[in-house]
Amino acid sequence: MADSEAFDFQIARIIDVIRDTNATVVGLQFPEGFKRRASGIAHEIEEATGSQILISGNPCFGACDIDVDLAHRVDILFHFGHAVLDDSSYAQNVYFIEVRSNAEIEKVVNKSLKNLEGQRIGLITTVQHVHKLQAACEILRSHGKVCVVGKGDAKIAYPGQVLGCNFSSARTEPCDEYLYIGSGYFHPMGVALSTGRRVLIADPFVNEIRELDISKVLKQRSAVIGKSLDATLFGIIVCSKPGQERMQLALKLQNMIRKHGKDARIIMMDLVTPDQLLQFKVDAFVNTACPRLAIDEVGRFNAPMLTPPELEIVLGEKKWEDLVFDEITA
Amino acid sequence: MADSEAFDFQIARIIDVIRDTNATVVGLQFPEGFKRRASGIAHEIEEATGSQILISGNPCFGACDIDVDLAHRVDILFHFGHAVLDDSSYAQNVYFIEVRSNAEIEKVVNKSLKNLEGQRIGLITTVQHVHKLQAACEILRSHGKVCVVGKGDAKIAYPGQVLGCNFSSARTEPCDEYLYIGSGYFHPMGVALSTGRRVLIADPFVNEIRELDISKVLKQRSAVIGKSLDATLFGIIVCSKPGQERMQLALKLQNMIRKHGKDARIIMMDLVTPDQLLQFKVDAFVNTACPRLAIDEVGRFNAPMLTPPELEIVLGEKKWEDLVFDEITA
Repeated sequence: MADSEAFDFQIARIIDVIRDTNATVVGLQFPEGFKRRASGIAHEIEEATGSQILISGNPCFGACDIDVDLAHRVDILFHFGHAVLDDSSYAQNVYFIEVRSNAEIEKVVNKSLKNLEGQRIGLITTVQHVHKLQAACEILRSHGKVCVVGKGDAKIAYPGQVLGCNFSSARTEPCDEYLYIGSGYFHPMGVALSTGRRVLIADPFVNEIRELDISKVLKQRSAVIGKSLDATLFGIIVCSKPGQERMQLALKLQNMIRKHGKDARIIMMDLVTPDQLLQFKVDAFVNTACPRLAIDEVGRFNAPMLTPPELEIVLGEKKWEDLVFDEITA
Repeated sequence: MADSEAFDFQIARIIDVIRDTNATVVGLQFPEGFKRRASGIAHEIEEATGSQILISGNPCFGACDIDVDLAHRVDILFHFGHAVLDDSSYAQNVYFIEVRSNAEIEKVVNKSLKNLEGQRIGLITTVQHVHKLQAACEILRSHGKVCVVGKGDAKIAYPGQVLGCNFSSARTEPCDEYLYIGSGYFHPMGVALSTGRRVLIADPFVNEIRELDISKVLKQRSAVIGKSLDATLFGIIVCSKPGQERMQLALKLQNMIRKHGKDARIIMMDLVTPDQLLQFKVDAFVNTACPRLAIDEVGRFNAPMLTPPELEIVLGEKKWEDLVFDEITA
């Protein structure tokens, strides 16, 4: 079931849009997990419409990560796998094809009932499963639970949806605990840190309930903060991707660092990787790009990489107890 | 001597330009080998001018590879290590700081005399040493040789300069053999393949003369061509970097492939790496981006990667004897 065959790429709708708009040059952008389907989908669309297809070969990690260059070269760019972000207006010719999963969630939600301890259950998921949240709610309610599906801020397209950089839908209403429908660990970790509540993972692909343990990531973050306490030169990373660019925050952090008698350089880049930062000789990095980077790639950079909230702890502007995941909110 | 301390970053000139133009936001872009100097140079410029400095963290492989996004965000972008290309007009606020090497070349040129066999010697080098070609010529002439320093096409800023994708200065006038001043292998290999002549490498950093042997790279290219003979689906790579974008060539190759009853998809990307192409399931790639990629990264892609001239051999449009390096000429 984890195979991408179980996802709906909406080819018929895409062909209709191309015909309706008379698009002759069409771009296709896929996140990494769907790129292996690119050639077949391109062939199908080209056969049906006769349009010239350009496939984006660039990495793609979210709706924040539109291939703006490709969007400028084509009549329409179809961006697969993510829901629109509120700030996507920079590319008017981008269509978001959300690629909903066909995975059944009833079984795993039923299975979760014996592990749920609270009364008010917050339901959270990624865009691939948002269309199944109503069914999940009904199961919870039929077993006497209160089901909470929070609206979230303007970056969130659907109630109950969370992004790797935005857990606002989990904070809309107070809950006793959360049930995350999906397979990854990052989104539920963000919710746990952001709300201080227990999060259960209901993985519909393997029909498994997993209890989330955030102690390992908290230890890692403490180590990164500890290693940065003596830093005197920071490299503040700013990403040029439209949905990740936080230059104002970077300038604010640079000022804050200098106020503390230390110094910082601003490094502007598209794709942030450990390899690409290897040549920059600083004592610590501060990442204002995708908040996941510092967490997912921990230990792989040549200097400790802090998130903006962690920098404030390093500088003594905030307390260790205030540690949360970095978010890009509306 | 190979240390970058031996290079001239023209800091005083940069400070003058910033003061003269009243630039308040300044971008700095370095090729990989100079990135470790970025923080120190940024500090020096900021101290002297008070301008806000943004350092490009993106990979940079040539004058073809301007950080256009950064250029749009700053008043002036200083691009280090490369001479201007003729088609750099897309970014009017880019200053090229060529970073000349202070390495002495007299000794190694004198040393080369006993290895030179011909009479008319073509002198070639990269931009780091072009200011030393006159001195090299005088040494050759004083020993009875004829010294040829070809002008090259419009992509070439200085007589005798070669790029990794342009050996036109070596073809300007016929020579018996070539003397390449520099440390790498790629540029002299391109000259050898492009002219069919012997090329000697005079490496001023280690004071060593090396005879170029192109047999290994020819064997590798033959293997890549051989492995692609049965390919039915090609992935044609087009780079979005302004100095590397060859969409018209890609479309021509796609048509040519289809004329032969095979098929091709066009993949558009910024940074071309083996990792980033891993998910694309094709029988062979054709690279219209930086010509070095197919050569330098041979065997590291998940399918054989051809250059455009090699594709023509695969399709039977050209003969194996016609094999040359791919070039981006004016």
